[in-house]
Parts: sequence; C-alpha cells; structure tokens
Amino acid sequence: MRDVSIIGFGQTPVGEHWELSLRHLAAQAVLAAMQDAGIERADALYVGNMLSSETSGQHHLGALVADFVGLRGIEAFRVEAACASGAAALRAGYLAVASDAADLVIVAGVEKMTDSIGNSITTALAEAADADYETPHGLSFVSINALLMRRYMYEFGVRHEDFAGFAITAHQNAVNNPYAMFRRPITKEEFVQARMIADPINLLDSSPVADGAAAVVLCPTEQARSFTDHPVRIRACEVGTDSLALHDRRDPLFLEAGYISVQKAYARAGVTPADIDLFELHDAFTIMAALSLEAAGFARRGEGVRLAMDGSIARNGRIPISTMGGLKGRGHPVGATGIYQVIEVAQQVTGRAGANQVPNARLGMAQNIGGSGATIITTILEA
Amino acid sequence: MRDVSIIGFGQTPVGEHWELSLRHLAAQAVLAAMQDAGIERADALYVGNMLSSETSGQHHLGALVADFVGLRGIEAFRVEAACASGAAALRAGYLAVASDAADLVIVAGVEKMTDSIGNSITTALAEAADADYETPHGLSFVSINALLMRRYMYEFGVRHEDFAGFAITAHQNAVNNPYAMFRRPITKEEFVQARMIADPINLLDSSPVADGAAAVVLCPTEQARSFTDHPVRIRACEVGTDSLALHDRRDPLFLEAGYISVQKAYARAGVTPADIDLFELHDAFTIMAALSLEAAGFARRGEGVRLAMDGSIARNGRIPISTMGGLKGRGHPVGATGIYQVIEVAQQVTGRAGANQVPNARLGMAQNIGGSGATIITTILEA
Repeated sequence: MRDVSIIGFGQTPVGEHWELSLRHLAAQAVLAAMQDAGIERADALYVGNMLSSETSGQHHLGALVADFVGLRGIEAFRVEAACASGAAALRAGYLAVASDAADLVIVAGVEKMTDSIGNSITTALAEAADADYETPHGLSFVSINALLMRRYMYEFGVRHEDFAGFAITAHQNAVNNPYAMFRRPITKEEFVQARMIADPINLLDSSPVADGAAAVVLCPTEQARSFTDHPVRIRACEVGTDSLALHDRRDPLFLEAGYISVQKAYARAGVTPADIDLFELHDAFTIMAALSLEAAGFARRGEGVRLAMDGSIARNGRIPISTMGGLKGRGHPVGATGIYQVIEVAQQVTGRAGANQVPNARLGMAQNIGGSGATIITTILEA
Repeated sequence: MRDVSIIGFGQTPVGEHWELSLRHLAAQAVLAAMQDAGIERADALYVGNMLSSETSGQHHLGALVADFVGLRGIEAFRVEAACASGAAALRAGYLAVASDAADLVIVAGVEKMTDSIGNSITTALAEAADADYETPHGLSFVSINALLMRRYMYEFGVRHEDFAGFAITAHQNAVNNPYAMFRRPITKEEFVQARMIADPINLLDSSPVADGAAAVVLCPTEQARSFTDHPVRIRACEVGTDSLALHDRRDPLFLEAGYISVQKAYARAGVTPADIDLFELHDAFTIMAALSLEAAGFARRGEGVRLAMDGSIARNGRIPISTMGGLKGRGHPVGATGIYQVIEVAQQVTGRAGANQVPNARLGMAQNIGGSGATIITTILEA
C-alpha cells in the first residue's frame, strides 16, 4: 500500500450561491486545488455529494465535473454516504493512489442546498435516515438529534446551556475564516435565547444549510515534494458504520461507527488520542460534538459536553475543535463538508491557519458523520 | 498493486418485486454471494445504485445494506455513475483489494424501479443526462437514444430492421437464464411491428425497467483458491468518461468514453479484441449495442450493426454478446446491471453458463454504460 499525501486544495466560500450551479461550484474548488498543486491533469476525479438529485435534478456528477473542469475522459464517479459523502470520496481517492492505480487524484465535495428544484431540504436530508422505520414517522434530522440530545441531558444530568461552548467556540473561530458563512461571534445569552427548532435543539445548536464545494489533490507521498513545499500525509482514512435507525443501535448515546473508525485510524497511524493536536469534528448539532469527543476517546461517556464547559476545546485547549468554524460557523454543505474539514486540518498541520493557528500543530484529525452516525469516517493528517 | 479475483456471486431474479424493498433485494444478492464464497464476514461493502433517492426516499445505502446483512460496523459506502453505478462500485472494491486496504470485499448493485414513491422513472433516469442543457428541453433517455439511432441510420444508410438481431439474440439467450425477466424468444416480425416509443426506437429496441440486485465477493488472487474452485481473475476494470450532453461530444456516434476505457482495459490485461471470447455489452437500446461494438474495436465506425445481421454476435459467432439475455432480455435494474454483467461473464469463463455456454470461453469482457455514454467502465475477466 503506497503512502498518500495531499499536495493542493481549493474551496469556495460557504454560503448562498444563487448564481452558481453545482458544476460551477465544483469547478471553482477543483480548479483552485489544481492550481494550488500546480497540476494541469489528473488520473481520476471522485466527487462526494449527497443531494444533487433532489436539489438540482442531476445525477452522474463524476463525469459532469471532470468534463467541466477540462479533464474530459479521465476516470470519475460519485461517492455517497449521506453527510459523510465528502470523506467517503476521499477514501475512494486514497484507495486509488494507495493501490498504484492512479498517481494524481482529485477529490471534490460539492453540495447545493439553497436553490432546490423539488422537495424541501429537510425532506431530502431525511433520506439519510431509515426510510422504512424512521422517516415515515415524521422524523427529520433535527428531530432525530433532538431525541439524542434530550436523552443525553436526562441520562447525564446536563442542561441545555451546558452545550453553549460548542457553538460559541465555532462562531468565534469562524470570524477569521474567509470561507466561513457566519463570521461573527455569539454570546452565551444569545445561545440560550435562540429560537427553538426541535426541543431541546435551538437555532444556535444547529449548523446551517449552505452551498459550497471543496477539493484536494492526492499523490503518492514519495512524489509529493516535487509538487509542493507543504505536503500533508494522510496517515489514515478509515470508515466505520452502524445501523441507520437510532432505535437499532446498541446504545443510541454512543457513536459506535465513530469508535470503530477512530480505532482503525489510530491503529493505522500508530497514534493515540494524546498525540492528536486538533480534531475537526462533525458539529452538525452541538450534541454530535459531545458524542464525537466521547467516541474518539477524548472524554468518557457522558463527559464530552464538559470539554465545552472547561475550555478544553479552545484553540489553546487540550483538544481544539472547530478551529476554522466547524460545521456550525463555516456552514454545512453536506456532501462538501468532509473535504472542508480535511482542508482545515491540512492548513493547521502545515502552520497555514493564520489567526486561527493551533500552536505547534503537527498531527490533526477530521471526522465526517453520515446520518445520525451510521457512517463515520476518520482521517488523520500529518505535516 | 495486488491482483484481484472474484470468489463468489449472488443475484435475484430480475423483474417486478413489489413485495421487496431495496434492502431486501440487496440482502438476497449479498447473502447468496457470501454463501457462494463460503464467507461469514467481510472487510468492506460497496453498493452501486442510481435511483434509491427518487424511488425509495432512501440515501445512505452502504451502511443500510451492511447492517441488514449482518455486517454492521464494516466499511461501506455507495457509488453512483448513473447506469454504470454497478461497475463503478466494482471499481471501488477492486481498488480496495488491490491497495491492500481490504482482503474480503463485497460489491453489490441494487435498483428498485417498479414501485417509485415520487417522480416517474423516466424523469428520474433523465437525471443521468445534463440537467442544465438536455433535460430542460424535455429529453428523456429514450429520446436521446432515438436521436443517436436516427443519426446513425442516416449517416450509414442503415434501416431500423437491421438492428433486429440485437434484440432477437438477447431474447433467445434469456430463455435459459433463470434470472432473466423476459424468457421468451421474439421474431424479426415482432421486432419490426413493435409499438413505437420514440421514433425510431420501438419497444423491442428497449431494455425494460426492473427491480434487481446482484453481488460479487472479491479477494486477492493469491488467496482465491482457498475459498473456491472457480475463482475468476479481474484482469482489468477501467473507467472512461465523456461529456454528459450529447451535443458536446466530438462525434455523437462514437463512444469515446468506451474507447478510452476499453483501451485502458486491453493495455492493463495485455490483450487485444481478438483475445476476447465474449462481450457482455450494455444493450440498453439496440443502438447502444452497435456503438459499443465499434468503440471496443470489434467493428469499424458504422459497421457495428452488421454484426447483428451476419450472426457474429451469436453464441457460436465471432464475438458473442448478451449471452445470458443482456439488458434487453435479462432486464435493466440500472444500478445493478453492471454486477449482473460481471456475474454472467464469470459464469461463462468458468464454464458454468449451462445451456448458454460459449464454447471454450476463457477471457470475457463486460461493459457498463452510464447516461448516453458519459461514463463507460470495461471489465475483463479470466478463469
């Protein structure tokens, strides 16, 4: 298995891009990544996307994006794992380079959510849940997370306001990220008083629907220095799964797919949680941030939320998270999020995170979650 | 790069399965494949599917199917490349084994088309075409193929009835395939008189909408004999692409993505067209069969249709096609078709095709086409 590195990346600002179609969004990110890597060709392109069918009436994004960026003819296909589609596409690209089937691979994530042709985005997103046993009862993704959060608060004696630190940290870090959607800080008072969405989840527990695209270029590590002075090694990119339906889980409050993927990633990279300098987790809702920290071994069961209360997740804390805004502050264009996360870790471990730099970051981790935790993909990067 | 082999397969009958949901269809195929390979676990599962969102309101099939077949926790995701989704998933599985990331990989293709929750199947299938430049004009997949067929007839002085051999051969071969949808022969008279769909394409030029699932198990070739006495080596599995929109092609009557993928596959396997004993091509419409034969090097431009007129495509002909019924006779559950094709080639090259056995078949080729030719994936198998 060949060692794989990232040699370039590109991203669009996350937000409402009414004037851009899927292909234009994807092309902006891919062309920026190609320019960053200094390449004009590639062997393959994999596209992570969840909702193009529902929102744009368009399947077949692999060939579409390859053609539109001037790479007509190359290998291309789309990868989907709900909101973990971006990282799943990265996994496919990683396998292509690791296997020696390709030397130069582009992995893009793209999502267009604010200009849908058909169903509501809430309905479309719910297709990540179990269509036979969950969505027929009216469950949406917010309400599934609300059930989890309510149970967590009950089991562990936690108040809603205890989660405030996740949202406050994310918004604070988004201020300095030019690609983030919400570049303004929020206060604890604003968090507590925010409009209720699905009790106990309010507006500031929730990441926003958004458009965006992000892309990375991969090559074998032994060739990486010929392309860039800032290569980033992919020490691991590992996938775990669980049941789609919450009620089928052994313990709904434990992200078993996260545990599996993290353990595989730690083993592959030969590291422990103590070695990780920052963790770009999947804070689609504040409850998910708490559960992710627990599944990844940074907190015991029921204690993930405490890391948001004691400052551990700050940029100078024990395990910085959402260092460029997270899903909450950056925005969550679902199929693109996994690639945005990886780019942010790449910026941190190469010391290029600007005002948000985590001091001495060398080893960073990103985690992309599909559904309420049925697919979880953990990537460990090192400068 | 490790050499990869198929060590087991399973398939459901193709047809209308009103009583089965996506997960049940997929599970029947996956469990049969696991039993055939004699395995009770796997390292990863990749699912090829195009339309689950439109027809079943369900994304996230990787984790869903993995869980439902008793493999909760393993790596899983979905791969999509329109009607080439099945072969694209095979490519992902091939890369996983070739890279040494996984030893035992299941690749499933599944599609449920006859019990749609929302849009018509015609509308959903059209999402394989260009949603900005083709479908807004009302083009469906039948009409796109009708434009191609009309142009082919005009350019090369061919009559509609000249295509009859493709449909007649497919139906004849489907008779002995217990998994085929249409197990009855048709006559040239029936072909000529069939109901018009989109002039010049009539009902018997067209493959049927259907439900179905198929799965294969992959492992490194060096381990294959420990699982089965009938291993099948994947000598190549290669992807080519082109523009989605027909009007953007250099020559609409030449499948450039097919040419690219076939040339890559021949080079990888070190073979020429003369070495191929049978060719399971993607006869979604009779015109596609003609174009595929030309792009693969079995006929010159404009002469593919002649192979249907002179008996070359018969089981004892120069290049047998659709030997188990093809898309026309077996049925075309789009995301599953690529895996059905590969299974049929595997049966042929291991001498297990029963009454439809191609004499002395050792090296076979399958080709899966997405859209009107924007993604084409060619797989070469050897016993």
